[in-house]
Amino acid sequence: MVSVLITGANRGIGLGLTRHLLSEPSVSTVIASVRDVDSAKELKALSSPKLHIIQLEVVNEESIAAAAKKVAEIVGEKGLDILINNAGIGYVTPLNADNISKAKILENLEVNTVAPLLIANKFYPLLKSASSKKGSAQIANISSALGSLEDVPTVGSAMKCTVYGMTKSALNMLTRRIAVEWKDDKIRATSFCPGWVKTDMGSQAATYTVDESTIPLSKLILALTEEHNGNFYHHTGEKIPW
Amino acid sequence: MVSVLITGANRGIGLGLTRHLLSEPSVSTVIASVRDVDSAKELKALSSPKLHIIQLEVVNEESIAAAAKKVAEIVGEKGLDILINNAGIGYVTPLNADNISKAKILENLEVNTVAPLLIANKFYPLLKSASSKKGSAQIANISSALGSLEDVPTVGSAMKCTVYGMTKSALNMLTRRIAVEWKDDKIRATSFCPGWVKTDMGSQAATYTVDESTIPLSKLILALTEEHNGNFYHHTGEKIPW
Repeated sequence: MVSVLITGANRGIGLGLTRHLLSEPSVSTVIASVRDVDSAKELKALSSPKLHIIQLEVVNEESIAAAAKKVAEIVGEKGLDILINNAGIGYVTPLNADNISKAKILENLEVNTVAPLLIANKFYPLLKSASSKKGSAQIANISSALGSLEDVPTVGSAMKCTVYGMTKSALNMLTRRIAVEWKDDKIRATSFCPGWVKTDMGSQAATYTVDESTIPLSKLILALTEEHNGNFYHHTGEKIPW
Repeated sequence: MVSVLITGANRGIGLGLTRHLLSEPSVSTVIASVRDVDSAKELKALSSPKLHIIQLEVVNEESIAAAAKKVAEIVGEKGLDILINNAGIGYVTPLNADNISKAKILENLEVNTVAPLLIANKFYPLLKSASSKKGSAQIANISSALGSLEDVPTVGSAMKCTVYGMTKSALNMLTRRIAVEWKDDKIRATSFCPGWVKTDMGSQAATYTVDESTIPLSKLILALTEEHNGNFYHHTGEKIPW
């Protein structure tokens, strides 16, 4: 039986992952974190005895510390088995735009790249506690194939996702380094691309429904082993090159 | 005869590149930008008719705009042939440090990742002007092998360079995307690793002297062709995997 913390659980992929993780018999506890608990209506409607909803503003260090304290109370001495860094935003702009916004670039990096690092850092003791008891703990970073340096898209709307891609390449480096730095602690890290999903960010033009992405994705996250440590996968399980 | 703009030219690799570019017969103009012109004593001592020293605070949008105006005055209608995004800083910390600093992580990203993007954006018209006349213009991003996702180091002092590596993975994505987005403009982008160099950042324990790195590096930058567009090289010319 495992405990899972997921960030950005109020909508889209985070909400889908929360829903499907709750339905898995091997999951005892899903801690769904959202920036604004009051407005997370769909999340609250999931009402399950396994579900705990907590407040977490991922770019706020004090909020992260408060969330870690709250999660420690929920999971107790068993620690936290799985951390899913899911919260993310996108900034779409061509590189030669006259009105390119430094503030938006920094905001994208802060949410997509810096927050997962700060959250991993602050939840390290809880993850280590779980790994020392069960042999491993997992960090799943929700990245994007748009962060693949090998497979840079050369056509279409993805062309304007440079900033988003940059935040995800950097996130992938975090995955790689956690896999090495915390190897002896048996805290593993893996990057995932959820695919292009029909969400507020992905738009209704996207390829996959939330279920088509998050059903297989939640199963992949629950089946993580040493083999996956420091690697990058599609929600289909197919490996993505860096 | 080409014109070159280099950022962070007051010391280390930037100063070395400036010195060696000035000695190249094919270079007509070296615009060396520094945050603080007054304190750039070694740079000023290079006194060459080819050398122009300008003020540029790479994280300041107004300063970038003012520098672009100044460079336009220097290069005139010929435009700017080569932009070298060299200015960089490093933040060294283990990922599980109790005192990890969000402010320092953001500062690293701002200087190493966001500034090269904003500078490329603002100098796009000057680069395009040069490429339309000579067939191409070049952006050389001074990255680091520590930004290679394939070749993540697993031992030694590099282990504490996660944040620095993340900034460079993201910078490499900028290189990749410029190579695609501005291909039709014939503005090319290439990432380079200068090696571990005896500078203030690299320390005196490093492998290479500034000359051992920047003599071959300056020659590689002057010899960039379509073949190098969107790729990543050591100062030795050897290709680095992403």
